[in-house]
This record gives sequence, C-alpha cells and structure tokens, in this order.
Amino acid sequence: MKKLLNIAFTMLLCVSVYAQQALWGGSPLVSPEINKDNTVTFRLYAPNAQKVEVTGDFLPQQKIETPFGTMDAPGAAEMIKGDDNIWQFTTPVLNPELYNYNFIVDGLKITDPANVYQIRDVSSICNIFIIGGDRADLYKVNDVPHGSVTRRWYESPSVDMKRRLTVYTPPGYEEGNEKYPVLYLLHGMGGDEEAWMALGRTSQIMDNLIASGKAKPMIVVMTNGNISQEAAPGETSAGLNPPSFMLPKTMDGTFESSFPDVVNFVEKNYRVKKEKSGRAISGLSMGGFHSMHISKEYPDMFDYVGLFSAAILPAGDVKSPVYENIDEKLKVQFGKNPKLYWIAIGKDDFLYNANTEFRKKLDDNGYKYIYFENGEGHIWKNWRIYLSDFVPMLFQN
Amino acid sequence: MKKLLNIAFTMLLCVSVYAQQALWGGSPLVSPEINKDNTVTFRLYAPNAQKVEVTGDFLPQQKIETPFGTMDAPGAAEMIKGDDNIWQFTTPVLNPELYNYNFIVDGLKITDPANVYQIRDVSSICNIFIIGGDRADLYKVNDVPHGSVTRRWYESPSVDMKRRLTVYTPPGYEEGNEKYPVLYLLHGMGGDEEAWMALGRTSQIMDNLIASGKAKPMIVVMTNGNISQEAAPGETSAGLNPPSFMLPKTMDGTFESSFPDVVNFVEKNYRVKKEKSGRAISGLSMGGFHSMHISKEYPDMFDYVGLFSAAILPAGDVKSPVYENIDEKLKVQFGKNPKLYWIAIGKDDFLYNANTEFRKKLDDNGYKYIYFENGEGHIWKNWRIYLSDFVPMLFQN
Repeated sequence: MKKLLNIAFTMLLCVSVYAQQALWGGSPLVSPEINKDNTVTFRLYAPNAQKVEVTGDFLPQQKIETPFGTMDAPGAAEMIKGDDNIWQFTTPVLNPELYNYNFIVDGLKITDPANVYQIRDVSSICNIFIIGGDRADLYKVNDVPHGSVTRRWYESPSVDMKRRLTVYTPPGYEEGNEKYPVLYLLHGMGGDEEAWMALGRTSQIMDNLIASGKAKPMIVVMTNGNISQEAAPGETSAGLNPPSFMLPKTMDGTFESSFPDVVNFVEKNYRVKKEKSGRAISGLSMGGFHSMHISKEYPDMFDYVGLFSAAILPAGDVKSPVYENIDEKLKVQFGKNPKLYWIAIGKDDFLYNANTEFRKKLDDNGYKYIYFENGEGHIWKNWRIYLSDFVPMLFQN
Repeated sequence: MKKLLNIAFTMLLCVSVYAQQALWGGSPLVSPEINKDNTVTFRLYAPNAQKVEVTGDFLPQQKIETPFGTMDAPGAAEMIKGDDNIWQFTTPVLNPELYNYNFIVDGLKITDPANVYQIRDVSSICNIFIIGGDRADLYKVNDVPHGSVTRRWYESPSVDMKRRLTVYTPPGYEEGNEKYPVLYLLHGMGGDEEAWMALGRTSQIMDNLIASGKAKPMIVVMTNGNISQEAAPGETSAGLNPPSFMLPKTMDGTFESSFPDVVNFVEKNYRVKKEKSGRAISGLSMGGFHSMHISKEYPDMFDYVGLFSAAILPAGDVKSPVYENIDEKLKVQFGKNPKLYWIAIGKDDFLYNANTEFRKKLDDNGYKYIYFENGEGHIWKNWRIYLSDFVPMLFQN
C-alpha cells in the first residue's frame, strides 16, 4: 500500500505542494456539490483572499458598460468565508441544464481547482456542471450505446489546404453495411471543429436521441468554418498560440464555396447516402450564415437546413459571388422544395430583427419554413436546444 | 464591424466582466511568452494579490515532508509585481521540452488564465508550453500528414462490460489496402484512455516519427487499464465526478486476463496484421506492469514488449492466477524469442531497484532484453522519451 501511495504521489506531475497536502489532510474539498434539491454549492479554499465571487450563467445577467454600448455579461455572487478558510456559495434551486462558471478571487478570474471538467470557449476556460432531468438528460453521458468520435484531416482542393474535422459515427456504424444520412454541423465565430463537441454536447445528444428512437442513426460532420485556419488552436504547426476571435476570411464566401470539398470527402470515405434526401446542414450564428448561403449556392445538395440564431446577411463591404443574387438563388432553392427549412432564435438575440426580416422575405415569397422561437439570446443553452429539436426532424422519410 | 464585435461579445459565454474588459482595454496579456533565447516569461494580472508564485517542472524540485516520508515536489519561484499590477517571472534558458506549470496566488493554486492549453493529470489541471528543438520537435504539431484519432467503445465479454479506447490510425490508413501492425499502449495509475494522448503527445510523436521515416506506419491502441471504469472520468454514466487516483481492481489480474478482448476487437475491426510479429505492447508504470504480465500470460501474442518505468511485482496480498508461476511463464515467453524486450527507467525512479532486481532475474536466466537508463524519475518527460525511442524499433523486419 505504501508503494502504491508512492506511485500516486510521484505520478501527480502537476500537483503543487498545496494540492498534495490536500490528499492527506483530510477529506477533499468537493466543488461543485449538486445537492439533492438541485441547489448547487461551490467551495474554494483560499485563506488569504479578501473577496471571492462565483460567476456563471445560472446567475441573473448584469449590464456592463463597454466602448460599444451597454452589454449583457454573466452575473456574479459573493461567496462567504467560513472558519475553515473555505469560501462557499449555494445557489437557489436550478432547473435542469448544463451550466458554466468561474470564480473571481480578488478580481482575478480563475477556474475551480476542485473541478476538472472545463471547456474552452474561444480564448477562455470555464468549468461546467449538469443538473439532470428533462432535456438536460440529453446532455449527460448515459448508459446507452455510444457512437465513435474521430478527429480527421481531409484535402480541400479548392483552397489547396489540408483541414481538420470531427466526425461522429452512430453506434453500429462500423459493424454494419447500412448507408447513413449525414448532418453537417457548423460552429459560430470564434469556434472551430471542437466547439459542437465541447459546449454543444453533440455526441451525448446524438447517442441519447438515437438510443431513445427519437432520431435516426446518422453521421454528424463538424467542420472548421474559419478558412484561414487548418484546424483548431493547438492542432496546427502554428503552435500553442492564443486563440483569436477575429480571424480573417470567416465570412467572405471562401468557406461556403469550398464546402463541396467536405461533402466529396465524406461521401468518398464513409458509408453514406449520396442524395439530397440524405444530407442536412445546420449551424449556429456564423454557422447559420454559412448554412444559409451554402444551401442556396448548392440547391440540390441539402434537403434539410437549420439556421440556429443565424447571422443572415454579409457585412456591406464584403464582395463574393456567393453573396450576389441572393433572392434569385433562394427562389431556385425553395423551388426545389427542401423537406425542411428550420429557423430558430431566442427573443433576446441581437440577431432577432435580422431573422425577422429574413422570415418576412420568405413569407412574402411563399417559401415554406418552420420557425421556432424561445427565450434568451445568443447562448449555447439555446444551441443545444436547437440541435436536440432539429435532429429528430431529419431523415424521417 | 460593430455587428461583428457584438457577435463577439455575446458569444463569449464564460468570459467575465474582467476578461471582457481586457478585450478593449489595450493589448492582451501574453503568458507564457517564449522569448527568442528560450527563456520564458510568465505574466498574471492580479492587482490585489500579496504573493504570486509560478510552479512547474522546469524549476528545481523541492523536498517536502509528508506522512509517508520526504518526497519530491515541483519547485516554485516568486513572481514580481510591476507598476501595472502584472506579476512577472522569467525563467533561465530552458532546454527543448514540453513543460507544465501553475500559478500560486496567495497560496491558491490556479491555472494561467491567459493560456488555454491545459491538460488534466488525474485530478489536477496544469498549463503546458513547448520549447521546440531536438527531441521536443516530436511533441509539436508539425506540418506533416496527420493520422486520425478515434474515441471508440468495444465489448469486453470476459468482464461483460462496454469499455472505451482511443485509436490512432496512421496517415493513409483509410485510403489504402495495406495491413498495419499494432502497438497497444497502456497508461499508469490514475490515467485512462486519454492519458497517452494528453501528456504523452502520442499522436504528435507518431505523426512526426512516421513522416520522417523513423517509424513504420502503425496503429496505436490506447486502452483503459482501470477495469472498474468503463471509460475516463466524465465519459460514463457516473457523471462529472472528481477523478479518483485509487481505483479498485487496477492491479489484480482482471485487466490482464481481459486483454484478449481488446486484441480480438482490434483485429476484427481494423485492417491489421494478425500475427505475433505485428503486435507490440508497452506501458508506463502500472501500464508497464500490465504489459509485463499480459505478454507473459499470452506468450504467442506479442513480439515486442516495452516496460517504461514499470512496476514489476504485484503487491504481496493480491492473489490472481495471472501472478502465479511468474518464473515458469517468463521461461516460456523468452523461449519463444520475442524480437524485442525493452526496459527503460530513470536513475531517480522509486521503482529503480525493483527494475534492477527484475533485470538480474532476466540476466541470470540468459533472457535477452535491451536496457535503457536515463536521468530523473517517474515523470511524463521520461515516458515521452521512452515512447519516441521505442516506436522506431518496432516492426522493422
């Protein structure tokens, strides 16, 4: 036993003296603790801190002043220091959801050292936890058959690049002979081919929807829509550089016109249905923009289109053949009767008016689409909802 | 442009007010900054902190007292506060290597908020950075063809479980018809099927060795050796619980005797060579222990065996048929002339004496093996070295 403990300590590569002491200094600190009544208790051992706060998306948002006007930001709550030098805060009862949070210690935003479940969102890291029940059970890993998730590279001849994508194949794909339909799932600005897996919980949502019979087994292809990048930060020869939000060429038509490279790669390398009725495309924000433009550029490619909180029109100064003659292209696309054109947005989304205008255009022309509106704004909570509502509508006939 | 910035801000889900301010408050703080002379500067904005340290494996180790005796722990260096409230520390010139670090702010160990490159080691998170050059270039993502990495589940009938593994397939695997040899690569205590990918940099090492012609293209299968777990923490229906170092049944013979399930799965599902000369097994610490016992239990299975800082003998109170008649089984194994039996350990490893005893046993019996000894101890730096030295010796004839 002593030998095992020796192995234990010497293998804890990145554990400081402080953390090691915690290993033999009594019961380890638990944070977050999800209590039986679905309140959540956060704890942080910080004997010398003057002020500790928790900030996260379960707290009411606050307004902050910025050079660009008043904006919403996650709220913060003060934690209380106990005699044991452990700061603590317990939430009200929380609804089922995947939540994120950070601590703020004397003004310094940190992650919770007691919680290894962390997710990168662009250039920040936050902790996550899940309150189960209702829809949030779709976001959990459950005891159901699991698909495979592969990070893979493909050639994109139209831009002469090797690029990385993430592929979810459903349980049973490798063993059978069946041909599967494909959902192409696109991220928003600042995201990459990891975003839908991390904050989107795509593999969990797909496993759970397929296991319950609510979704058809399908392949999900998550691309990188930043055409100036080969792959997510840290995954290219650019090295371990800080991720950048404002990348060049994200919405200039290049990614859209290179998209057939992705479809060709998938259809050459996977056992898939190679017709319009076997292909869907959807994306969030910039990925909704890409989905809208790709699907109208290639009106015979996709029978299912999903715009999640989509940006709609290109910035005024961007020139690309992709963004010309939009009305005529939409006429062609809708003339071919796509099986589903689905638009979803939250009432508080800053893109709400742009989506309303776009729907008016569709209405004025009698183009068929389905509209889903819910609360809140431009947040991952909504995109998980949209994905889990959209997927069951795909490939059902 | 304002619209794009609006997208930017509202999409930054887990960014606090403080971080958002940094976005328009001037140039962002860079940390770590790898300077041209291979010194490294760390920076942390912490206006209210009294003391800030950096701790990491590039600093001289320190001795600490524990209930189990004196042990080595990563050293720490004090950072200096500047007029701008930014704490700073610059290292001496560092040798090429992948390094890890954390900050300690008034006694609280945190990750560097400016560096999104973080790795979990058991129950702790540390930041990483790479000083390139020499061997460390193998640990970087370089502009070479990249293999695919898949997280996948398999049936293990001998323990009646579904279990998760990570599979690296070399560049070209999907397009060709060639049959590939397989390296089974096993983690140590506290690790899981993610460990060799994260701290081991396996996919980078494989891509780079294959691209330079130093290693044969091969498949690498990274298993989960904790037979009580189906998969890594967070990847099972157990939920987002804290990872545990001391798991039941890690070294009781169950994983070893279930190992043919893994080989059967791989040989049924991948285009691989199905003979002894096409199979290698290696692992670090507990994984070296597993590799030693599996390879002697199944003496016709593996022609290549690698023990990296291996634990050798089971704890005295553990009973398993796997651990009986070790000498006779070794005689059978070595009687079949494995092509390579490779033992590697660092001079300061706490398992050094156990390995010396084991080598004496092999020597006394005239069993052929190759021994590699280097400096330092039971650390990932050594395991990356051992992997990148071992792999080029495999499947060369």
